Amino acid sequence: MKALVYHGPGERSWDSVPDPAIQEPTDAIVRIDSSTICGTDLHILKGDVPEVQPGTVLGHEAVGTVVEVGDAVTTLVPGDRVLVSCITSCGRCRFCKEGRYGLCTGGGGWIFGHLIDGLQAELARVPFADASVYAIPAELSDEQVLFLADILPTAFEVGVLNGGVQPGDTVAIVGAGPIGLAAVLTAQFYSPSAILMIDLDANRLQVAGELGATTLIDSSDGLAVERVMKLTGGAGVDVAIEAVGVPATFDICQAILAPGGRLANIGVHGKPATLHLEKLWDRNIGITTRLVDTAATPMLLKLVASGKLQPAKLVTHRFALGDIMKAYDTFGNAAQERALKVVLTNR
Amino acid sequence: MKALVYHGPGERSWDSVPDPAIQEPTDAIVRIDSSTICGTDLHILKGDVPEVQPGTVLGHEAVGTVVEVGDAVTTLVPGDRVLVSCITSCGRCRFCKEGRYGLCTGGGGWIFGHLIDGLQAELARVPFADASVYAIPAELSDEQVLFLADILPTAFEVGVLNGGVQPGDTVAIVGAGPIGLAAVLTAQFYSPSAILMIDLDANRLQVAGELGATTLIDSSDGLAVERVMKLTGGAGVDVAIEAVGVPATFDICQAILAPGGRLANIGVHGKPATLHLEKLWDRNIGITTRLVDTAATPMLLKLVASGKLQPAKLVTHRFALGDIMKAYDTFGNAAQERALKVVLTNR
Amino acid sequence: MKALVYHGPGERSWDSVPDPAIQEPTDAIVRIDSSTICGTDLHILKGDVPEVQPGTVLGHEAVGTVVEVGDAVTTLVPGDRVLVSCITSCGRCRFCKEGRYGLCTGGGGWIFGHLIDGLQAELARVPFADASVYAIPAELSDEQVLFLADILPTAFEVGVLNGGVQPGDTVAIVGAGPIGLAAVLTAQFYSPSAILMIDLDANRLQVAGELGATTLIDSSDGLAVERVMKLTGGAGVDVAIEAVGVPATFDICQAILAPGGRLANIGVHGKPATLHLEKLWDRNIGITTRLVDTAATPMLLKLVASGKLQPAKLVTHRFALGDIMKAYDTFGNAAQERALKVVLTNR
Amino acid sequence: MKALVYHGPGERSWDSVPDPAIQEPTDAIVRIDSSTICGTDLHILKGDVPEVQPGTVLGHEAVGTVVEVGDAVTTLVPGDRVLVSCITSCGRCRFCKEGRYGLCTGGGGWIFGHLIDGLQAELARVPFADASVYAIPAELSDEQVLFLADILPTAFEVGVLNGGVQPGDTVAIVGAGPIGLAAVLTAQFYSPSAILMIDLDANRLQVAGELGATTLIDSSDGLAVERVMKLTGGAGVDVAIEAVGVPATFDICQAILAPGGRLANIGVHGKPATLHLEKLWDRNIGITTRLVDTAATPMLLKLVASGKLQPAKLVTHRFALGDIMKAYDTFGNAAQERALKVVLTNR
Repeated sequence: MKALVYHGPGERSWDSVPDPAIQEPTDAIVRIDSSTICGTDLHILKGDVPEVQPGTVLGHEAVGTVVEVGDAVTTLVPGDRVLVSCITSCGRCRFCKEGRYGLCTGGGGWIFGHLIDGLQAELARVPFADASVYAIPAELSDEQVLFLADILPTAFEVGVLNGGVQPGDTVAIVGAGPIGLAAVLTAQFYSPSAILMIDLDANRLQVAGELGATTLIDSSDGLAVERVMKLTGGAGVDVAIEAVGVPATFDICQAILAPGGRLANIGVHGKPATLHLEKLWDRNIGITTRLVDTAATPMLLKLVASGKLQPAKLVTHRFALGDIMKAYDTFGNAAQERALKVVLTNR
Repeated sequence: MKALVYHGPGERSWDSVPDPAIQEPTDAIVRIDSSTICGTDLHILKGDVPEVQPGTVLGHEAVGTVVEVGDAVTTLVPGDRVLVSCITSCGRCRFCKEGRYGLCTGGGGWIFGHLIDGLQAELARVPFADASVYAIPAELSDEQVLFLADILPTAFEVGVLNGGVQPGDTVAIVGAGPIGLAAVLTAQFYSPSAILMIDLDANRLQVAGELGATTLIDSSDGLAVERVMKLTGGAGVDVAIEAVGVPATFDICQAILAPGGRLANIGVHGKPATLHLEKLWDRNIGITTRLVDTAATPMLLKLVASGKLQPAKLVTHRFALGDIMKAYDTFGNAAQERALKVVLTNR
Repeated sequence: MKALVYHGPGERSWDSVPDPAIQEPTDAIVRIDSSTICGTDLHILKGDVPEVQPGTVLGHEAVGTVVEVGDAVTTLVPGDRVLVSCITSCGRCRFCKEGRYGLCTGGGGWIFGHLIDGLQAELARVPFADASVYAIPAELSDEQVLFLADILPTAFEVGVLNGGVQPGDTVAIVGAGPIGLAAVLTAQFYSPSAILMIDLDANRLQVAGELGATTLIDSSDGLAVERVMKLTGGAGVDVAIEAVGVPATFDICQAILAPGGRLANIGVHGKPATLHLEKLWDRNIGITTRLVDTAATPMLLKLVASGKLQPAKLVTHRFALGDIMKAYDTFGNAAQERALKVVLTNR
Repeated sequence: MKALVYHGPGERSWDSVPDPAIQEPTDAIVRIDSSTICGTDLHILKGDVPEVQPGTVLGHEAVGTVVEVGDAVTTLVPGDRVLVSCITSCGRCRFCKEGRYGLCTGGGGWIFGHLIDGLQAELARVPFADASVYAIPAELSDEQVLFLADILPTAFEVGVLNGGVQPGDTVAIVGAGPIGLAAVLTAQFYSPSAILMIDLDANRLQVAGELGATTLIDSSDGLAVERVMKLTGGAGVDVAIEAVGVPATFDICQAILAPGGRLANIGVHGKPATLHLEKLWDRNIGITTRLVDTAATPMLLKLVASGKLQPAKLVTHRFALGDIMKAYDTFGNAAQERALKVVLTNR
C-alpha cells in the first residue's frame, strides 16, 4: 500500500510499504477513506517529538471501513464504517476503566503516527479495535465526522469541559487555530453569554466570528489583557482557554481571570510558564491540563447527527490522499494559504 | 476597653481604647471570651500587609457573647454565644449569595484586624452580624470551636475540598504548621488511604502523625520528592496540599502529582512560582487557589459536636487575654516554643 | 392604592387598599410597573392553597421601581428598577446561605400573594429587599425580564438543572403550559440533541415547536409512551421533565426513562403517585422534586441581555394593570383564549 | 468438578459436573478458593428469578486463582489471585465505557449464577476476564476481600454514593442485613455525624452498633418514623438508605427525609411503592435506584489494604466448600442462626 512515511526531521515521503496485518486477536484492519493532517504532525516533522522513529507512517485522524478483524473482536465486522481517532483504549487498565483513555497504560493512548504506524495511508492496523473505534451513522458524511478524530474532542474535553463553561459565562479563547476554533464551536454547547477570541491573525479572527465568537480581539499590539478587562468592566472572564502553548499566551489567560475563574490549558507547551501566585493565591481560581481522552466522542456524534455541531465548517482545502505531499505543503504554510483543516480522500 | 493595637511594623501594644459601638443597624457588639493568634498577625507585624493601618486592633478569630445588636438584627439577642470568624458576609453581593464570602464585595470578606478593628480585645463590633456569626451549641467549650474561626475552614475548604480528596486517595500535605495540621484533621473526613506529611521540623512531623498522618517525610535534606515517588511506587499522589507559601514547596507539590492529580494551594505567596507546563500539559492535573469562605463552618460545628473533629488537639499554650503580649512572644517563636495554637481567655 | 384582593374561594376584586409602608429596616417599597398572573393564582382562587387569607393582595411576579428603603438597606436607592420575584430570601438562615431560598426558614421563601400582600397592585412592600430583588440593566424592557420572576427559574432550576440535561441528551417534557414551554427554552442552554414535547393541546404543541422542541407528541390518544419508545429505538429518554402535576403524567415520565435517566418533577401534586420500583430498582434512575429557589436569576438575566434567552415570546396578551379583572378572565380560560402569559402594565 | 446446581424452585444439590473450558479468547478459567452465599441466591431458589435455568451453577462472589487464559487475555496469567465479582464488564459497550458495568449490553452485567454458570464451584469460566476481575494484593487474605465481590460495592455505590453522603450528614439506613451493614461500614468513608440504623431484629441492630451505627432504632412497634423525627428535632435525615425492598420500608424512608434530602434505594423490589408527591413536590428531595456496577472495587481494595475498611467483620460462619449444602441451610435460616455472611473455603 501507499503511506506517508516520516524519515527523520524535515523528511517525509509518499512511499510504498507492506500492507498491515492482524497481529493481536483484538486488532482490526481498516481501509482509510478520509484522513487529515494535524499541527502535531508538523511538530513531529520538526523533530519535536523524538519518540517517533524514522520509518513510521504518520497520521492519527481518519474515517475508514473495516476490512478484517481479529478473533476476539465482537462488535465490528468487515464493511463497518468507523471513526478512528487519535486515542486508542485498551479497555482494561485503571485509566481506561475510568474513561481516561489518554492516560492508558495498557498499550493504548496516543499511539497512531507516534508509537505505531498511523492513518495517513491506504490501510491501517487498529489495536483494541472494539474499544477504540466509533460506528458512524450512515447518514453522516466523512467530512461531517472526520474532525471528531482529534480537534473536536480535544477542544471540548480539555478546553470546554475542564474550563467548566456554564450558561451565562464570559469565555475567552486565546488562539484561533483549528483547536481554538473547535473550542468556539463546542463552548456554545453550554450557552455562554460571550465568547471572546484573542489572536494575531485577522483572517482567523474573522473565521472565529463566523463560527460564534461574539467579540474579536486582535492581540498583535500586545494590549489584549487591557482590552479584555475593559470589555468586562474590570471583572475579567469566567473561563480562559489557552489554545497556543507558549508562555505569553498562558500569561494572558492568568491576567484576565475573574475571581472564581478557571483556566483550561489545551496548548502543548515546550517551556515552563510563570504562575503569578502572588496575585492569584486568594482569587479562587483553577488551572487544568489534560491530554484528550475522546470519551466525549459518542456525545459529539449525537450533536453532529442532530445538526447542532457542524465541524465541516473548518474544511478549507481538499486533496486526494495520493496528493498528500502537496497537502502537507499547504497545511505547513497555513497563514498564507488561509488553511484550517485539509481533507484527504482515498476513493 | 483593652485591646492589642498595631502601631506600624514591629510595633504592638496592649492599650486602653474606646469601647466599640453599633454603627449600622446590622451590627452587633460581642464580648470576646476566647481569642487566638494567627500566622497572618505576625505577617501584619512584619509590615507585609500594608493596608492594615497603624491604630488597628488585630485578631480575626474569637468565641464571644453578644452584648448588643442593631435594629436590623433578627437572629441574635444579647447573651447568645457565638463564633466570630475571620470572614464576614454581607449576605447581599453576588459572591455572598453564592457562598463565596471570602470574595465579598459588599463590605465583608476578611475585615477583622485588617480593614476594621479586630478580635484580640475585650469587645468587638461585628458588621453584618446575622450573616456572619455562628451560634455555638451549649455543650461545646470555647476551645472545641475556637479554631473553626479560621484554620479549620481554611484547611478544609482551600485544601481538602478544593483538592477533591476521595476515599482511597493518597494525599500529601506540604507544611506541618497549624494550617497543614488542620488539613491532616479534615482530610480524614473523606477516608484517604494514606496521608503523607512533608516538613522540616521533627516536632511538627510527630504531631502530624499523632493527628492522623500515616507517613512522615522529613524534607530537610531536599529529597522529599524522591521519597514520595518511591513510597508511591513511582505513581505520585492523588492530591498535594501546599500549606507553606513559597516557590520551593509549590515545586514539591508539582513534582509529586500523579496523572489526574490535584494541587490545592493554601499558602499565602509573596512571589510567583514556576509552573512546569512542559511536563504537566498532558497529565490531567488541576491546580486551585482560594481564600477561605467559611461556608463549611456549620458542617464543621456538627462534626465537633459528634466528636469526629477535635480541633482542641492543636492547643499548645494558654494565656489570659491580658497576657497577650507574652502570648505573641511565644507564638512568634513557634519552633523553639513548640507552639501551634495559643488560646487567650477573657473571663 | 389599587390592588387585586382575594376574598375567599372564587372571589377576587380590584380594590382600593391602604398604601404599604416600611415595617422593618430591611424592607423596600416598590412601585409595580409590570406584573403578570400565574397558574398558582388560579389555584389560590379555587381554594387549593388554604393558608392564603381572605384580604390578601395576590401576585408574586413583577418588575418595579424602588420608591423607599428601610434604614438597613444598602444596595438599593429610590429610582432603582428591579425584578421582584416569587421567592424572597432572608439571607441569614441555613438554607438561604446555601442558595436554597425556596426553603428559607427566616421569613422568606414564597410569601408574596401567599403569606403577605403580593405584587398585583400599584405598590408593594418587599421584605429583605437587599437579598431578594435583582437590578435590571437599563437596556432590557420589562417584558424581557418579567417572567424571570417565576416560570423561567422554575423551569430551569427544577426541570433542567435537576434533570441534569447534558449536551447530546434526549429530553422529554410532559406538559406544554407556560412552565413546560419555559423548560423548552432553558433546556436548550445545554444543547440536547432532541427535545420531545408531550401534550394534549395542538396549539400549545405548535408553540413548543416554535420555541425549540424538536418532536411534538400529541398524547390525547393515550399512546405517548409507545410513541416515545418507538422514536428512541426502544431506548427511552435521558431526561423526563414533569410539568403538569397529576399521576398520569408522572406515570408517563417513569415509563419513558432510559437506564441511567433522570426524572425532574416540576408539577405541583395534590395526590400521591405510584412508583414502579419493581421495574426501576435496577435501572439507575434518579427522581427529583424542588420548589424554585431563583438562585439562577442572575444567570438568566445575563442570557436575556446577550439575546440567547427571549422569554417575551411567551406573551400572548397585554392589559393595563387596571384591567386585571379582565386579564384574569382571559388567563383563566387559557385553552380557548390561547393564553400563555399576560402582561399587566401600570404606567 | 463439583458445583452447587440449581434444579428448579426449592431444588439444589452439590453435583459432579464437567469442568468449564475456555470458549472465547477473552475468557479465563479460575479455581475458586473462597466463595459465599448471597440473599439473591435464596431468591433464585424460591423461583423469584425465572430467567435462571435449571442446571445452572449458582454463586456470584468469589476469590480465586487463574488457571488458564484465552488468547486475547493480556493482563492475567495462570497463578494470579483475583477477585471475581457479581458484575462482569465487556469493556466495549456504551455503558461499560461509562463505568456502568451493571447495565452492560455486550454480554456482561450480572451473569454468574444467573445467565451462565456461577462461582459456588471448584472452577469457573470468567468471560471478559481482563475487564472483569481484580488482582488481589498478596498481603490481603481471602476473607478480607471476598465481600468486595458484591455487598460492599453494592452498599457503597447504590447506597452511599447515590445518597451523596457528606461530612456532618445525618444518615438513616433501613434494614440491618448484610447490605445494610455494609452501608454502615462504607457510609463512614464520608464522616457523617450520625448513622441511624432501623431494623426489627435486636441482634442485627447490635451488630450495626458495633460496626459504627450511632443510633439503633427498633422498628418492631411501627414507630420508627416518629422516633427518627424526634431524634432529629423534627428536621429529618439528610440521607435515607433503603436496604430491604418492600413498600413499608420505602415508606419509612420517604417520611423521614429532611428538605433537600436524598433517598437511595438498594432494595430489590417486587412491587410498586406509593410516592407521596403531594408532600414531597416542594421539598427538594432526590430518589435514586441502581444496580451495582462494581466500579468502586479498586477504591475499596485500597481501603481494605490501608486497614480503614474491614469487611471480614461480617463473617459469622465458615464452611468447607464441600459442605455448601449445610451452609445454605444455615444462611437460609439467618435470623435464628444469627448468620450474616458465610465463607466457603476450597483448599
